[in-house]
Amino acid sequence: MKVGIIGLGKMGEALAYRMIKAGISVVGYDIDEHARKHLCSIGGNTVEKIEDFVHKDIHVFWLMVPQGVLVDRVINELKPCLQKGDIIVDGGNSKFIDSMQRARELALFDISFLDCGTSGGVRGREDGFCLMVGGDSRAYQAIEHIVKAVAVPHGYGLLGPSGAGHYVKMVHNGIEYALLQAYAEGFHLLRDGMFKDSRLNLEKVAEIWNHGSVIRSWILELVQEIMNEDQDFNGIAGNVEATGMGKWTVEQGHKSGVPVTLIEDSLKIRTWSQETGGNYATKLVALLRNKFGGHGVTKK
Amino acid sequence: MKVGIIGLGKMGEALAYRMIKAGISVVGYDIDEHARKHLCSIGGNTVEKIEDFVHKDIHVFWLMVPQGVLVDRVINELKPCLQKGDIIVDGGNSKFIDSMQRARELALFDISFLDCGTSGGVRGREDGFCLMVGGDSRAYQAIEHIVKAVAVPHGYGLLGPSGAGHYVKMVHNGIEYALLQAYAEGFHLLRDGMFKDSRLNLEKVAEIWNHGSVIRSWILELVQEIMNEDQDFNGIAGNVEATGMGKWTVEQGHKSGVPVTLIEDSLKIRTWSQETGGNYATKLVALLRNKFGGHGVTKK
Repeated sequence: MKVGIIGLGKMGEALAYRMIKAGISVVGYDIDEHARKHLCSIGGNTVEKIEDFVHKDIHVFWLMVPQGVLVDRVINELKPCLQKGDIIVDGGNSKFIDSMQRARELALFDISFLDCGTSGGVRGREDGFCLMVGGDSRAYQAIEHIVKAVAVPHGYGLLGPSGAGHYVKMVHNGIEYALLQAYAEGFHLLRDGMFKDSRLNLEKVAEIWNHGSVIRSWILELVQEIMNEDQDFNGIAGNVEATGMGKWTVEQGHKSGVPVTLIEDSLKIRTWSQETGGNYATKLVALLRNKFGGHGVTKK
Repeated sequence: MKVGIIGLGKMGEALAYRMIKAGISVVGYDIDEHARKHLCSIGGNTVEKIEDFVHKDIHVFWLMVPQGVLVDRVINELKPCLQKGDIIVDGGNSKFIDSMQRARELALFDISFLDCGTSGGVRGREDGFCLMVGGDSRAYQAIEHIVKAVAVPHGYGLLGPSGAGHYVKMVHNGIEYALLQAYAEGFHLLRDGMFKDSRLNLEKVAEIWNHGSVIRSWILELVQEIMNEDQDFNGIAGNVEATGMGKWTVEQGHKSGVPVTLIEDSLKIRTWSQETGGNYATKLVALLRNKFGGHGVTKK
């Protein structure tokens, strides 16, 4: 089976890499010529325009583009290339309500649309991603072997109807907001609290905590890596971006009457950090986001 | 080297078990006769009163009793058994300021007092604990082989001067409060949010997240176990205890001018849960605390 991948940024390239490694034939498109050339260099093929997919006999398209209008634009440009029974997977961080709407519209043309939340960050390229899929189960079964190639063993599945994949990914990111902030507050208090003058070795604390403590986690392993490099964070600013998912999680909490206090406060702290430059804790959050997602950190 | 263990509850028994397994000779005391008998059955010796330690030629005492006045009482009762150069380790959840005070007082008698935060919960018995030690480095070196026997490989260390061990453990627990609440809010929103009617399989979500996602962690593995057993939590109340460490973390944050917003939120939510019976999220927190720490859950 051939897969058309649209969007060859950090995440799209990593998907392509994993599919190619699993023997799946990949044809990619990106507006950026360098990204296209790179795909050829790792064993993929490319098209120069989305409309060129029409000649490629491709029936599965995997989108990895920024959420919002761009997804609709890509789907529109793809339409001439689509046949009944084709499958579109949106692997980006789209709003689940948008995904449900897109699935309904494409169903009118007998095109299946699967929403697929993707977690794992830049290290997923080698280790595999965590994939949360929503949508039609027949369409899912048809592409499950591709999902499997992209994912960590046991790190994938169809979680529910259309929208469920992006909904679960939204909640995942909401939780992520709060986890990052929770660790960051703790390390801030280790550094600037009562033992400030003792200069506790925060790398050693993270290392010890990662071995046998209740709070051990992958995020804490990344904290350990960061602390190994530097514990002062003097060279960077503490502003942290919020890209949508956290805000949507809070909106959904309000809509459903489910309190999401910690997630909401993490979001507020990010807004505050953008206005003020943040503090030691938000610097650590920014560094963690950089570690796992390659997100930018503002140098001072 | 012989070790006297005082307090043979869940955690004290687990310490004794690990020391005995490592070939360390253990003499234990607990007010409860059954706990003493149990220690004998796993290869330890016991005394019937703390003052009986005087005949036992023991120079290292490990306390595993509830924090507060009880620790002082035990130390007082131990005094006739202590000689210059002896070492007392407090492995409980004592307030770090109390530990610093105790160390100062015992130093007048040339007794070393080490504060040792212990994490890992009831599973530490088999897997080993995470041990965070503060105090005099010579005393630490003298007992490091015992620490090593109790701990997970790489999960132990001297982190700073007197008080640092319990301080780091306090912050650990503060972080733990927020992590538990963060996951709980997320699962609450998965269950009672927009996909309520789809009844998302929360065990499957946790399982997938545990494989390759950014938020994978030991706590999330426990969520998965809980969801495997039941996802409705109808039989239990959602009141969650707060045993001190969370409150101290917040106090220290205020004292040092370090914002610990999420930890403070989690503490408030626990107080609220005690007044109201809580919600789905706090039920999950209660079940998690039960899983890792054996803490009670209120049946309805």
